[in-house]
Amino acid sequence: MAQSSRKIINDPVYGFITLDHPVLLSIVAHPWYQRLRRINQMAFAHLVYPGAVHTRLHHSLGAYHLMCSAVSELQRKGFAIDEEEALGVKIAILLHDIGHGPFSHALENVLIRGVHHETLSLEIMKVLNKDLDGQLTLGIDIFTGAYPKRFLHQLVSGQLDMDRMDYLTRDSFFTGVSEGVIGYDRILKMLTVRDGELMVEEKAIYSIEKFLVARRLMYWQVYLHKTVVSAEKMLVRILERARQLVMLGADVPACSPVLDFFLQHPQAPATDTSAGPAGWDVNANLDKFCLLDDFDVMSTIKVWMFHSDMVLSLLSRSLIDRRLLKVRFQATNFDEEYVQEVRKTVAAKLDIPIEETRYLVFTGEAVNTTYNSLDEKINILFRDGSVKDISEVDNALIRQTLTSTVKKFYICYLNT
Amino acid sequence: MAQSSRKIINDPVYGFITLDHPVLLSIVAHPWYQRLRRINQMAFAHLVYPGAVHTRLHHSLGAYHLMCSAVSELQRKGFAIDEEEALGVKIAILLHDIGHGPFSHALENVLIRGVHHETLSLEIMKVLNKDLDGQLTLGIDIFTGAYPKRFLHQLVSGQLDMDRMDYLTRDSFFTGVSEGVIGYDRILKMLTVRDGELMVEEKAIYSIEKFLVARRLMYWQVYLHKTVVSAEKMLVRILERARQLVMLGADVPACSPVLDFFLQHPQAPATDTSAGPAGWDVNANLDKFCLLDDFDVMSTIKVWMFHSDMVLSLLSRSLIDRRLLKVRFQATNFDEEYVQEVRKTVAAKLDIPIEETRYLVFTGEAVNTTYNSLDEKINILFRDGSVKDISEVDNALIRQTLTSTVKKFYICYLNT
Amino acid sequence: MAQSSRKIINDPVYGFITLDHPVLLSIVAHPWYQRLRRINQMAFAHLVYPGAVHTRLHHSLGAYHLMCSAVSELQRKGFAIDEEEALGVKIAILLHDIGHGPFSHALENVLIRGVHHETLSLEIMKVLNKDLDGQLTLGIDIFTGAYPKRFLHQLVSGQLDMDRMDYLTRDSFFTGVSEGVIGYDRILKMLTVRDGELMVEEKAIYSIEKFLVARRLMYWQVYLHKTVVSAEKMLVRILERARQLVMLGADVPACSPVLDFFLQHPQAPATDTSAGPAGWDVNANLDKFCLLDDFDVMSTIKVWMFHSDMVLSLLSRSLIDRRLLKVRFQATNFDEEYVQEVRKTVAAKLDIPIEETRYLVFTGEAVNTTYNSLDEKINILFRDGSVKDISEVDNALIRQTLTSTVKKFYICYLNT
Amino acid sequence: MAQSSRKIINDPVYGFITLDHPVLLSIVAHPWYQRLRRINQMAFAHLVYPGAVHTRLHHSLGAYHLMCSAVSELQRKGFAIDEEEALGVKIAILLHDIGHGPFSHALENVLIRGVHHETLSLEIMKVLNKDLDGQLTLGIDIFTGAYPKRFLHQLVSGQLDMDRMDYLTRDSFFTGVSEGVIGYDRILKMLTVRDGELMVEEKAIYSIEKFLVARRLMYWQVYLHKTVVSAEKMLVRILERARQLVMLGADVPACSPVLDFFLQHPQAPATDTSAGPAGWDVNANLDKFCLLDDFDVMSTIKVWMFHSDMVLSLLSRSLIDRRLLKVRFQATNFDEEYVQEVRKTVAAKLDIPIEETRYLVFTGEAVNTTYNSLDEKINILFRDGSVKDISEVDNALIRQTLTSTVKKFYICYLNT
Repeated sequence: MAQSSRKIINDPVYGFITLDHPVLLSIVAHPWYQRLRRINQMAFAHLVYPGAVHTRLHHSLGAYHLMCSAVSELQRKGFAIDEEEALGVKIAILLHDIGHGPFSHALENVLIRGVHHETLSLEIMKVLNKDLDGQLTLGIDIFTGAYPKRFLHQLVSGQLDMDRMDYLTRDSFFTGVSEGVIGYDRILKMLTVRDGELMVEEKAIYSIEKFLVARRLMYWQVYLHKTVVSAEKMLVRILERARQLVMLGADVPACSPVLDFFLQHPQAPATDTSAGPAGWDVNANLDKFCLLDDFDVMSTIKVWMFHSDMVLSLLSRSLIDRRLLKVRFQATNFDEEYVQEVRKTVAAKLDIPIEETRYLVFTGEAVNTTYNSLDEKINILFRDGSVKDISEVDNALIRQTLTSTVKKFYICYLNT
Repeated sequence: MAQSSRKIINDPVYGFITLDHPVLLSIVAHPWYQRLRRINQMAFAHLVYPGAVHTRLHHSLGAYHLMCSAVSELQRKGFAIDEEEALGVKIAILLHDIGHGPFSHALENVLIRGVHHETLSLEIMKVLNKDLDGQLTLGIDIFTGAYPKRFLHQLVSGQLDMDRMDYLTRDSFFTGVSEGVIGYDRILKMLTVRDGELMVEEKAIYSIEKFLVARRLMYWQVYLHKTVVSAEKMLVRILERARQLVMLGADVPACSPVLDFFLQHPQAPATDTSAGPAGWDVNANLDKFCLLDDFDVMSTIKVWMFHSDMVLSLLSRSLIDRRLLKVRFQATNFDEEYVQEVRKTVAAKLDIPIEETRYLVFTGEAVNTTYNSLDEKINILFRDGSVKDISEVDNALIRQTLTSTVKKFYICYLNT
Repeated sequence: MAQSSRKIINDPVYGFITLDHPVLLSIVAHPWYQRLRRINQMAFAHLVYPGAVHTRLHHSLGAYHLMCSAVSELQRKGFAIDEEEALGVKIAILLHDIGHGPFSHALENVLIRGVHHETLSLEIMKVLNKDLDGQLTLGIDIFTGAYPKRFLHQLVSGQLDMDRMDYLTRDSFFTGVSEGVIGYDRILKMLTVRDGELMVEEKAIYSIEKFLVARRLMYWQVYLHKTVVSAEKMLVRILERARQLVMLGADVPACSPVLDFFLQHPQAPATDTSAGPAGWDVNANLDKFCLLDDFDVMSTIKVWMFHSDMVLSLLSRSLIDRRLLKVRFQATNFDEEYVQEVRKTVAAKLDIPIEETRYLVFTGEAVNTTYNSLDEKINILFRDGSVKDISEVDNALIRQTLTSTVKKFYICYLNT
Repeated sequence: MAQSSRKIINDPVYGFITLDHPVLLSIVAHPWYQRLRRINQMAFAHLVYPGAVHTRLHHSLGAYHLMCSAVSELQRKGFAIDEEEALGVKIAILLHDIGHGPFSHALENVLIRGVHHETLSLEIMKVLNKDLDGQLTLGIDIFTGAYPKRFLHQLVSGQLDMDRMDYLTRDSFFTGVSEGVIGYDRILKMLTVRDGELMVEEKAIYSIEKFLVARRLMYWQVYLHKTVVSAEKMLVRILERARQLVMLGADVPACSPVLDFFLQHPQAPATDTSAGPAGWDVNANLDKFCLLDDFDVMSTIKVWMFHSDMVLSLLSRSLIDRRLLKVRFQATNFDEEYVQEVRKTVAAKLDIPIEETRYLVFTGEAVNTTYNSLDEKINILFRDGSVKDISEVDNALIRQTLTSTVKKFYICYLNT
């Protein structure tokens, strides 16, 4: 009874999560993994939904828990998944978000330009794999899709992957938006495999519809809620302004050396040979990245509340005090003249040059697709052995017209 | 502190339900109301979902609870609902199901032909109103729609009435079909009134979509589940067979005098002057109806398990032992020849005349409409004051093609 | 993929219950098992807690589900439970309540005198075992305690058995008494075995305390709630009165032949050779018993509402209409003179002989023990290998004085 | 319909929280209130229970929500609470935690010596009251107990106050420790007032017992969990070490000017006339305090991971990477010689002077009382008008012996 290789974690969403293999415990205990405790899963959604303060670590453990269930179900249905593969796919999901930085969706292209979080995840996994004597190799192969059993990869990253199952469930739970609840347990029970591809049994059609509609609702009601959008865009503008000031030679100290590093090295890392002077090498600086978290960003912004640059301090103070830029959505693009008019008013009010108002008045697009039949492909396996996309079944709720992208246009502006 | 006029009831769905007016307590204490304890809300759904054994009384109390919330919300938003009206609309919802008999949906046109449960509800309310010195008058007017403030009636019976809000919520809760959960609390918060009509605020669009999709799911996954359909149709056939035997002069005793009465008096009651010989007067027999419940029906069928008529005893035993007729759904009507073939096989197997197989082999239709824009009309009140049907808003999930009725054809047959 | 030997059942309490062996499916499909659908788990508790209408079948499935978890946990901790034993202990729990009759706690010594429900359970299991070609033998041995691994029996029937875990959890869920919630999942995770005995790890001390306090609360707040007590005692009096009338030669027809049989044969069955004239043979009449359910009892009482015997009809009508006898609890026995006084008043009021008032005015005791250290023995296994009873750990909440029985005295009487 | 003075907030615990008065909205919108978003309610409990990341703001809103229910219930029972008082008591609870700093329980006597958080709360309320033109005066009087209706103060701060009701409920919810669930809704329904004092009705006895046992469980299982204790004590040691280094003249920069201020001014503030040289004036520095949050503390510790002082960097790194000091609990004090032995080992291992090991090896006490009958006094109002303390009712679970304090001794030490 090697109890030491077994750990039980309370989870308000699923009850208990069990880690029962030494390598899983080693992963979770790693400082780079513990960092995920310090990254909020939902960035600023808590400004609207105060409960939404759960972390990426919690989400990753949750997705892992669902993976354990999915693997058991598929095994019980007779699909071959051996113990090594089972461990591999659990490792893959446990690590799938390891490359996320703070406020990832907002900052992905701001703080660290040109490196996608999945690339970082992979690089980090490789380092961890060395530390763990190659025990992650199969997990990494499943993560990248190199492993031949495609459905294993699809459980990690696909239309019905455990990542989505968990984040929709968890985000709905912590926001208290009960309408976002999906029937994750029923969908898991209905997973099946055919020709190596993950799909769902016919009985699950209504659950899948429900899943897609719940996702649609979560997008428009939570992830793209106008207050959330405003806060995230303000964060981007704050960092852009800080960068600009750095480039102009101003003193814009961050609270931590690692955030300073990324502020001072804004450019794309040396993924190719021709890295410019400020470029940096991903691998050489992975340890810096793995120190970066919400605390660096937020404590820095708290200090910038008192910065001498008015735009930087105004934005920083507004974000911290939750006195956000106004935001308005509409179905069509905002008229450029109108935007200029707003900018002029703000410039006059604050007595700043009009070009600086781009940090305080700006437009953008919020985009979501209920179901993208081109790249989503949720396949239904019918009792007669035929396979159809969810958008093609009889009396489909999800059909052609829903599969087009919905775009909403927004303007954020300082209320003068 | 007249505590005696206040009663608190535990409810697993909403926590606590408070009855806080003497007339409400008198209604609930009435024997005719207590009868609702003995009528299962979901008939035979428990054969698939064992938790689905909640009663019509429980549902009625739940709908009443939601009404209390809805009234408070509307009052707080400034819509005029005085104390008398508030009590009236609560009375109306508390009594809205009082006219339901046992296995209502299945037996409505079998046990008591030609009287709709809403008619019976109204007749019963009138009797209760006399007993309670006219205190129900306003409630009855709201129930029938005679009261001028239309939105009060719509809270009792309309597209977003408290009846539906509760039954979807409660049925989903007790079946454990978590995907059927609707955001009733959010919808209640978003109710509004314009030009005397009940509608919802713009912000509720996604919640309403969710509500309609959850209802769609509940229909196909629960209410029209093939096992449930089979059991309900078997019940109908059992009573039809018993009736036929009665007409043929056989001895088919029911367990209770009241069920006997309705078996012996199959015909339409004397709602008009021309009641036939076996017709009966609704009002004169209201007390009989108000004794009828699931116990009469089920204990009678248990006795019929041993009846000498093979069709009757076979069906009765099969229903009681949950060895149900096989059922198959398909998108098109079953071929008549095929049905005849099945009948022949059954007739041969049981050695009964072919015409008696109509109790053991039969076809029918299960029908549901996700959203009927013709008679549902869920109106959305936009911030700019305009009003649109939910199927007409931008990027509507609920749109024309979904509003057509979905019909599935089934065959039930004895497995030989 | 023999999907046909796998069945998934929705449960609002645990999500999904999986039956995954042909013998389990055969048991559940048996008519004698299906009968448990027609027996309310909590008898008349629904008169106070309207949600408490779940059935013995549902409880049995729930206890089975917990058993599956408990077995997995113990196996994962390294305790030897082979596949045959695992199946056996699941069979034992699935069948543990098969011998319960309708309103079991109230009627155990009334309807069927002298046979304990566990005896009946065992007899029924033996018959089923024959039908199933001996597949239940190991399960029966575990049920009776004949099987050498004692902890398996203790999982079925012991201080921390799956029966209790489920009924407390389920009753608390369906009544909506959230305070009765026990941490069943945590307790399951903490189960352990030492010297062949089931016990719990040290970490579970607070959970066990919580479990015992929740049980205490459920007893006094739910199971022994005065309204519930009143209804159950009325039921007993109704059957006693009917029996007396039968013995006096009156015509007191039950609604069903099987209930008639038990009314007419009140005496102890022939468990020994000297069965008296009215005694009946358990085995010869097992099929009759296995037809008996709540429907027989309740529909019969509904008919007795109109019986010519005033005491019988008065009690029957009062129970059906929920106009129950008044009940009062106190800490000491009721004074005999006082009781006589009340009886006289009732006799005068109803104009009946004083001896008949014993059906309408009577006293009794409600008894509960928070923790009986004599026969409960919940053992805690400490990290240092020592074992202590829960009432003997440091700073015990559960201690000597709590282990004595609490007795409350009640009087039930017709309110005149 | 002044919708703008009404705000609805989703809460996963209670569903929806409604703020419906302009002054309530003004309070919540204040930057000093928004700061509570940045203070974790449960400090380091999330290191064991990853869901426990909810904030003081969320808790405060939750306690406010319960207050709304409590006030409504008491009003409905006929106790006089006018609109002004109702608003006052809501203001008081909304602000009751406004004086909490980051990691309050751990740092109260470390970061800001000699000022209790309730003192700070009061000072902050006074400032806010000025900003809000005196609208908080009645609320402040209720908070301090100056207002004559004592039960209003007791709802804010007393044995059954809304603070406790919410924190136990919320902490149990977010940790997922379902056994900590209290029946808050039932207790609220049972609140009553007699002679101006808050008490509960007799019916609530079992709920109160349950409440106290749940609290006991939460203390030992969560708040005083050994890992949580270790992390909190490490935080204290980190700040103490930093202070010592500051006093020794070392450069120990914090990440933010405000934390620097409190590090540099460690002494008691000038609450009396004789403030020493490093003392600071509470009122003059309230704005500094109101900037301080978890981000200052955590980002500073992240920087100190790289400090040249080995003790400071070791502790900082260990806390951030969750490689905590080992902790052991026992019932008696640790032997001083044993502790010295451990210190020597650590000193040798790290090659540091023995006196510096007091940051890495130390002992302490964890203390909790299940029910302190001296200062808790939960009064039960019996039907006969008598009042008894919960520990004095018949068959009390909570009795004398439980009311003594349970003390556990711990040692924290670096694992060498």
